[in-house]
Amino acid sequence: MLYVVGLGPGEKEKMSLEAIEVLKRADVIVGYSTYVRLIKEFVKDQQIVSTGMKQEIDRCEKAIDLALSGQDVAVISSGDSGVYGMAGLVLELLSKRKEQLEVKVIPGITASIAGAALLGAPLMNDFCHISLSDLMTPWEVIEKRLHAAASADFVICLYNPRSKGRPKHLARALEIIQQYKSKETIIGLAKDVGRQEEQAILTTIEQLDETQVDMTTVVLIGNKETFVAGSNMITPRGYPL
Amino acid sequence: MLYVVGLGPGEKEKMSLEAIEVLKRADVIVGYSTYVRLIKEFVKDQQIVSTGMKQEIDRCEKAIDLALSGQDVAVISSGDSGVYGMAGLVLELLSKRKEQLEVKVIPGITASIAGAALLGAPLMNDFCHISLSDLMTPWEVIEKRLHAAASADFVICLYNPRSKGRPKHLARALEIIQQYKSKETIIGLAKDVGRQEEQAILTTIEQLDETQVDMTTVVLIGNKETFVAGSNMITPRGYPL
Repeated sequence: MLYVVGLGPGEKEKMSLEAIEVLKRADVIVGYSTYVRLIKEFVKDQQIVSTGMKQEIDRCEKAIDLALSGQDVAVISSGDSGVYGMAGLVLELLSKRKEQLEVKVIPGITASIAGAALLGAPLMNDFCHISLSDLMTPWEVIEKRLHAAASADFVICLYNPRSKGRPKHLARALEIIQQYKSKETIIGLAKDVGRQEEQAILTTIEQLDETQVDMTTVVLIGNKETFVAGSNMITPRGYPL
Repeated sequence: MLYVVGLGPGEKEKMSLEAIEVLKRADVIVGYSTYVRLIKEFVKDQQIVSTGMKQEIDRCEKAIDLALSGQDVAVISSGDSGVYGMAGLVLELLSKRKEQLEVKVIPGITASIAGAALLGAPLMNDFCHISLSDLMTPWEVIEKRLHAAASADFVICLYNPRSKGRPKHLARALEIIQQYKSKETIIGLAKDVGRQEEQAILTTIEQLDETQVDMTTVVLIGNKETFVAGSNMITPRGYPL
């Protein structure tokens, strides 16, 4: 059996009971070394196969091979394994290899949801997820989605907003978004959610300090009704109050 | 202290450790009666304040009053409390009442994420959430969002897709979506996720039997690359395989 397990944002308390149970019972755990460290506390006897960044295909192939040999294998992913995570890759590889293997996806709390809880309640009305990484999606497609999402006033969650290799993507995304949303639109930054150094920052499109954004940040851009009250970012659901 | 707790889709196994701990420790639990039943197993001594459907404002006001009186109160919401849930309403009411009260939002697994895990991995690329309920969002705004999301080929998660009071909304939404997405586009229906009767149905825009969709269903509409392999709905992330 092959499990693909979403760890949530990083602390054990935000994992589901099911995810913890699967990891405890698995024979082998396969994951990116940073995430393996997060679960070391409660996996003790399992074989660990950890690989470095950008070795996702290799990691999933290994996990499939081990599961096909009869072991119970858990591939771990941060957040939810089905949101830009490992679940799709495992299922795609299996389909390509034409192998029969039972796969169970164990959902987790993805970064936008964990970040939103830290920021208040910014996702109370319709919202989108857009990854600004163009490693696997052409930048033109990403731009088209930014235009569409901003023009219909979705709340927008940006994943992979800015990295050393892509220092300009966030600025370009905000240029597009500003064609439709005002510069006073509220932005929430949720950084390192579920870790000791977690941080919530409230700002606006105009006042955003881009250097505060890195790959551990999820950027939540409000709709035209989103407001700040105290330390909370709130998008109204629409109740008459 | 006031907690707003996301229960996840319905079974204890998909709740976070943090959510369970908060519910066990709370003095009072406030929620819609159906959700209170879901947690009866592990809350035994707490005062329960349960109210019927469509009494959200009343329920949140009561929770705020109880918390202001010094009790630890947990308002429960299905899925994630920040996604069309109770978190925003609690924070909005507090802001309106100008009361000072510490509020902590405890995230949970929302229906789209739980449904996606049941269906395979449909959310591996950019996606939107749109609620088809026009109780609190004008239908024109919903239509605009459907046009935008479909035109940029987002995967689309429809919440509140169809009810007795809104039997035609799903059909109208699919008419709009079909202006941009082909009629062979894969649709996944995740019904009653996390409950004994949970069910995954794979179909296409063309072949969808609308009568299978009700308020316990989340409807996931793929992008142009989404495919079915075995019993799984898969949206490729874009890895070169």
